[in-house]
Amino acid sequence: MAVAQRNHRVLLAQRPEGLVRDDDFTHDSAAVPEPGAGELLVRTEWVGIDATVRTWLSKAEGYIPPVEIGEVVRSSGIGRVVASNSTKIAEGALVATLTGWQEYAVVGDDPMLTTPLDEGTDSLAALGVFGANGLTAYVGLTDIGQVKEGETVVVSAAAGATGSIAVQIAKILGARVVGIAGTDEKCAWLVDGLGLDGAINHRSDDIGARLKELCPKRVDVFFDNTGGPILDHVLGRLADHARVVLCGAISSYNDAFKPPGPPNYLNLISRRARMEGFISWDAWGRYGEIMGILGGWVAEGRLQHRSHIFEGLDAAPQALNAMFTGENIGKIVVRVAGI
Amino acid sequence: MAVAQRNHRVLLAQRPEGLVRDDDFTHDSAAVPEPGAGELLVRTEWVGIDATVRTWLSKAEGYIPPVEIGEVVRSSGIGRVVASNSTKIAEGALVATLTGWQEYAVVGDDPMLTTPLDEGTDSLAALGVFGANGLTAYVGLTDIGQVKEGETVVVSAAAGATGSIAVQIAKILGARVVGIAGTDEKCAWLVDGLGLDGAINHRSDDIGARLKELCPKRVDVFFDNTGGPILDHVLGRLADHARVVLCGAISSYNDAFKPPGPPNYLNLISRRARMEGFISWDAWGRYGEIMGILGGWVAEGRLQHRSHIFEGLDAAPQALNAMFTGENIGKIVVRVAGI
Repeated sequence: MAVAQRNHRVLLAQRPEGLVRDDDFTHDSAAVPEPGAGELLVRTEWVGIDATVRTWLSKAEGYIPPVEIGEVVRSSGIGRVVASNSTKIAEGALVATLTGWQEYAVVGDDPMLTTPLDEGTDSLAALGVFGANGLTAYVGLTDIGQVKEGETVVVSAAAGATGSIAVQIAKILGARVVGIAGTDEKCAWLVDGLGLDGAINHRSDDIGARLKELCPKRVDVFFDNTGGPILDHVLGRLADHARVVLCGAISSYNDAFKPPGPPNYLNLISRRARMEGFISWDAWGRYGEIMGILGGWVAEGRLQHRSHIFEGLDAAPQALNAMFTGENIGKIVVRVAGI
Repeated sequence: MAVAQRNHRVLLAQRPEGLVRDDDFTHDSAAVPEPGAGELLVRTEWVGIDATVRTWLSKAEGYIPPVEIGEVVRSSGIGRVVASNSTKIAEGALVATLTGWQEYAVVGDDPMLTTPLDEGTDSLAALGVFGANGLTAYVGLTDIGQVKEGETVVVSAAAGATGSIAVQIAKILGARVVGIAGTDEKCAWLVDGLGLDGAINHRSDDIGARLKELCPKRVDVFFDNTGGPILDHVLGRLADHARVVLCGAISSYNDAFKPPGPPNYLNLISRRARMEGFISWDAWGRYGEIMGILGGWVAEGRLQHRSHIFEGLDAAPQALNAMFTGENIGKIVVRVAGI
């Protein structure tokens, strides 16, 4: 396949404080790399923006090492294989992989890292509902949250990429579902578009009062993407034997110092409740099985997915900030120029 | 049986702030109450002092209602039945029940509330290792903590009534066990007396550095009685799939305002770990079975128990404070005058 001469890349220039700024990154135009033995050269078409990307830019060690200064920003993506030294994945294949913020990526062919997609696959669905977001929502609600029919489920960042899948799965599982989001538009979408039993605007509502009103039997499962005061409010409204599913804490990922934890964590004792974290990657072994379930729901029209598209790699930092300022509904993606 | 004419009682006069003070209580000498149908009159011999008593004096609703102003302070105790209107428990029986801080208590004969003890029972053991402390330690480590052989277990307030039982059970279960306590004397007892693999003095040691040194494979199970900075330190040292067993938070029970939660709670995500609360009373149905196990260990000399005795009901407030200032080793009890 024809390969352009240069590779537009976005590199980490310095560790950001708070929201990312332009000078936290360097844009360069490097030589297109050569794939080594067993490797693939992938032309990036779409880049997925996840909250976890922001954590990789900070020095604190998470579950995988941070991006080093001078390295391409790590991120998920969808691309076309333009050269292959792999016996497993041929030139021309569409793949989901860790492309990073660059036009051309050399990646391995390990199936946990690089997944071939059927021709005609919807790349936006592949990045979201059929990617880490769908896997995270499913595993979080079932394995960790163990949602049962008739229970009350609350989801924070409910209009986000993972949250919007989680609320729908919780409805499908037969729960009463309340979403927490940051604008009236998002709340309206959650109730009118996705059929939730209620929504709370955490910027304008009295969260505690609304939780009481919308969750008369208290909260059995809280799927938390935000941390901070929202987590604390819900901890104050737990039902006996409740499960708090810790998916993320976007309220704190931009903080230079760790904010305090939730004072109401002690309610876990009186409510005999638990708070549990998980990493969806641990469930990659069940990816096919879980995607079969989600695919069925999507095909039946029971599971919707939505994307918020930014144009061009130059917009990637702005797209990352959008996750934290909350301007998106659904999955944030960047369309790479020229596709 | 001969019954004295008056009943020395300690009543709650006002809700304490911080450590309790003398004027938080009224001492009176009331008429000895009459048991109603199915009820028992119990002459209190020993009163057990538990951290939870302090929470009952505050207004915040826990898992049972607070003690109201003017009521006798609620607490566990051991006493002799001096009059019985029950068909289940006869006059003369020794019982463990909620005597409260008073010489004579009228109690029901519900076996969950009032447990007849064999004649010759060691009252101090009945209040501690064979009471709520033993039950709590066992349930916390097994059901909630799911300690497995070879794992690393850390226990806070490890020289206290529940902690000192918990560390020994963890050793019996085959774990590497590190205790955290507040004096060198306690730490010496934990290592030399109870055979722990290490002890940390949280008042004088660098807790983080010592955890690293004593828990080279990180912490699989943390049995937490204190909350506060100790909890946060251990959250920063969790192993993958760790379990944090929330038993209590004596560091905060005297606070008028809820202190912040542990900032490191987010490590629960990267470590795929959980933090879970429980109430040992939920396991009363298995009391006999669990006490059989603990009794076997005590008989074999593998499980020691120790008490710190205060003399007379007048000393009960001081005994309660001792729990929080940390002057006790083992179970704090009050011997009621005249026995």
